[in-house]
Amino acid sequence: MGQADLSGTVAVVIDVLRATTTITHAVANGADSIFPQLTIEDAKSQHASKPTALLGGERGGKRIEGFDLGNSPTEYSREVVSGKQILFTTTNGTKAMQACRAAETIYIASFVNLTALCNELAEHETIQIVCAGTEGEITREDVLLAGAIVDHLIDGAKSIECNDQAQIATDAWQEAKTGLTATSLAQRLKVSRGGRNVLRIGLEADIDIAATLDKFSVVPRLDPKTWEIRDSRNMGR
Amino acid sequence: MGQADLSGTVAVVIDVLRATTTITHAVANGADSIFPQLTIEDAKSQHASKPTALLGGERGGKRIEGFDLGNSPTEYSREVVSGKQILFTTTNGTKAMQACRAAETIYIASFVNLTALCNELAEHETIQIVCAGTEGEITREDVLLAGAIVDHLIDGAKSIECNDQAQIATDAWQEAKTGLTATSLAQRLKVSRGGRNVLRIGLEADIDIAATLDKFSVVPRLDPKTWEIRDSRNMGR
Repeated sequence: MGQADLSGTVAVVIDVLRATTTITHAVANGADSIFPQLTIEDAKSQHASKPTALLGGERGGKRIEGFDLGNSPTEYSREVVSGKQILFTTTNGTKAMQACRAAETIYIASFVNLTALCNELAEHETIQIVCAGTEGEITREDVLLAGAIVDHLIDGAKSIECNDQAQIATDAWQEAKTGLTATSLAQRLKVSRGGRNVLRIGLEADIDIAATLDKFSVVPRLDPKTWEIRDSRNMGR
Repeated sequence: MGQADLSGTVAVVIDVLRATTTITHAVANGADSIFPQLTIEDAKSQHASKPTALLGGERGGKRIEGFDLGNSPTEYSREVVSGKQILFTTTNGTKAMQACRAAETIYIASFVNLTALCNELAEHETIQIVCAGTEGEITREDVLLAGAIVDHLIDGAKSIECNDQAQIATDAWQEAKTGLTATSLAQRLKVSRGGRNVLRIGLEADIDIAATLDKFSVVPRLDPKTWEIRDSRNMGR
């Protein structure tokens, strides 16, 4: 986390509520590829050259006018997204991806594929975790997932070095992990800043979904060259 | 924490290792007043008009050439500081104080006077906690104290609203609090960024001292108008 130089590193982008959770659903449900777009205009202009692609994303949490899909994981069902390209833009998540543009590899992280993601991350030596946050401020839901990732990596590694932000995140996750259930995690996410924003627009179910651990075994990965997100298992290294 | 606008608010500055811990020792040991100075040059130029004042502080963790005192709490004993004015400059702590200049009141926080500080903070409605960190990055030792303060305030209050950073800090502190002893807290501080820096210069004992809870009942407060730190009990509101 932080403003570190990401050139050539392995980056992990977190926007639990909801961009990275939604992308993971899309990939798990057979989307061909997702193209993160910084602005609505970018998405629309890309759509001109990809007319069969779906337009997805949000502003103020809500589906963008003229778009096919919003930012709820349930909208990205197999029926809707299988085999499709998706142009996708959200308020904080796609910005965080953009901030990782210099990285060698960019992973898209969520609780719904935590173990699969961490198994793949364990193969890398140095990892930078980037929390999307809200309006430039770190948020609790993203920090909890960052801590969960570090905790998994510590469990599987002989030795691991963490910076202070990673230590703080792991402290916070350790606290959440005590007596952990999907309900207790969802409860924590609901009081976070991102959670309160999602509740405000009446999409509580999205938080429950985002708090479901290991629902999927896909690992969405964003190729910094092609700017496409696909299941890592279908991509070269 | 964060880059919030502090005008008119109650600010709490944390630089556990070691500026705010050291200042608390100085105040507890009867220093008349401490004047935080941003730069060595500022401290020296102020010294011209306050020739009896002691010069204290560090760069790279070490006592500054020509200064009377470094940044170790033990140097600020009653024999040395009682009745004295102190011009004080450190790498991160005095910068954090400067960042709070617009606040109405500025408290100087440390573990060594945690309960006394929180009792006084409980009288205020809105509190902004500012972690000094290191080179602009948040550090674990400061976040743990921030969490401890929030935890104390939650315990004593009917209801309290926290932003996400305060929630994360409280999560981290809850984890540290389980089975808490002075040794276990010191151990956590030693692996923090600030702790590693202090260990590197051979001052491990300073960390053990900083991890001692409630050694003092003074509450150092920095007056934004006079830019003097004194025991809050000897100041107007």
